[in-house]
Amino acid sequence: MKGKVYLVGGGPGDPELLTLKAVKILGRADIVMHDALVSREVLALAAPCAERIDVGKRCGKKLLTQEEINALMVSYAKSHEVVVRLKGGDPLLFGRAGEEITALREAGVEFEIVPGITAGFGAAAAAGFSLTDRRVASQVLFTTIQRDTDNRSIQWGGISSTTTLVIYMPGTDYARVMQQLRDAGWPEDMPCAIVSHASGKDQEIRSTVLAKLADEATLPAPAIMVVGRVVAEVAEEIGREFRIAPEIAEKTSRPMVI
Amino acid sequence: MKGKVYLVGGGPGDPELLTLKAVKILGRADIVMHDALVSREVLALAAPCAERIDVGKRCGKKLLTQEEINALMVSYAKSHEVVVRLKGGDPLLFGRAGEEITALREAGVEFEIVPGITAGFGAAAAAGFSLTDRRVASQVLFTTIQRDTDNRSIQWGGISSTTTLVIYMPGTDYARVMQQLRDAGWPEDMPCAIVSHASGKDQEIRSTVLAKLADEATLPAPAIMVVGRVVAEVAEEIGREFRIAPEIAEKTSRPMVI
Repeated sequence: MKGKVYLVGGGPGDPELLTLKAVKILGRADIVMHDALVSREVLALAAPCAERIDVGKRCGKKLLTQEEINALMVSYAKSHEVVVRLKGGDPLLFGRAGEEITALREAGVEFEIVPGITAGFGAAAAAGFSLTDRRVASQVLFTTIQRDTDNRSIQWGGISSTTTLVIYMPGTDYARVMQQLRDAGWPEDMPCAIVSHASGKDQEIRSTVLAKLADEATLPAPAIMVVGRVVAEVAEEIGREFRIAPEIAEKTSRPMVI
Repeated sequence: MKGKVYLVGGGPGDPELLTLKAVKILGRADIVMHDALVSREVLALAAPCAERIDVGKRCGKKLLTQEEINALMVSYAKSHEVVVRLKGGDPLLFGRAGEEITALREAGVEFEIVPGITAGFGAAAAAGFSLTDRRVASQVLFTTIQRDTDNRSIQWGGISSTTTLVIYMPGTDYARVMQQLRDAGWPEDMPCAIVSHASGKDQEIRSTVLAKLADEATLPAPAIMVVGRVVAEVAEEIGREFRIAPEIAEKTSRPMVI
């Protein structure tokens, strides 16, 4: 085996939210296999001569199967020194890293994981609330919206309302999310925030309550929802619509200088 | 108001896991108010002339009350340009940022939140497993161990075993953690990992199962526990004891050069 594979977190969008380690490894990359969610500004941090391969989804359709991605990673590691598998957010949350790690282990390929800022933290930082504000919350659940016909994996009912829910990939059907929260017993007045493109130049934040969730216009992916009393603290400030300040948009769209 | 307060995530330990933004702001800091958990290597990234104030806990005893910390932040913002409130991990998870944000808002002090890598992601990256490996997990709960006499806020029973638990501040009484997990219906063979000083030079990782948790020697704080099937994937590799490789310890203890 010649090379090493780095599973690197690309953060929520703003390239300044990458870790020093991620930037250092990207700068040495021979190959960058990235998801569709990774921003152009983050990809620009890779070595100029690095080969960039988009292995993500487009319009819900995968360009490559997970097995193909695994095989490609192993194959590149045989011929290149530094292979970066770049994922949006943190590589170990909702990113299918489990299967990729198994494939690397089975093939005897050396690998290392470099954490990243996941969208949930990026969104809370942008909106300005604590995910576990002890006055109203005791814990936080990072979850996804259930799309299967059976409801086995929906686990929002058994937990108390002092749990903050961070829902990844809520999709475009907010009425469905609302119904699933209602079915799980969440109250009608529970505050919800929707954050699209957290920390990026297209960031948008809105706040509402569970009862009115279906009335919200759908924000573009990648988006997350935060459901919990912690949102109330900033709901008035966020108001119905909150776009990133023009001077911040300007800053984050400039190429990075390190 | 003269200055601005930055609530900055100091990451899990390794200074290379700070974000570019955090490093940039630390480099311009006039004041750094930090918790005890923030590593020396991270503090070394602050501007040489910055005044460093330890507002953390020592042996469970607070140096300052939360109200005193809030008042100090507001006061420093009146006389200094860049005031950094530096917290271990991410500032918005189990860090009392909620009260600090309220105090800053009420005093009309400008502030900004800079996310950090929380210990849960640092630990998973170090051990090498996905927190939401879809073969065995669907979501992840960031929680703490309940120390009060009433058990109202323990919410581990209502969620399924496809939830990965990341328990912050598990304390030194593993028998108690074991009992709380048992009471919540978690099975005896559920894999558990204990990660102390994730990503830092004193990192230690051990794995066991729920039934044997009380037999484990206590690892030093800051430590977290990860409970879930995702741990099984690496349990054999971690074995009974796993210390950070000497060459990594050497690397992380060297001063950072950016």
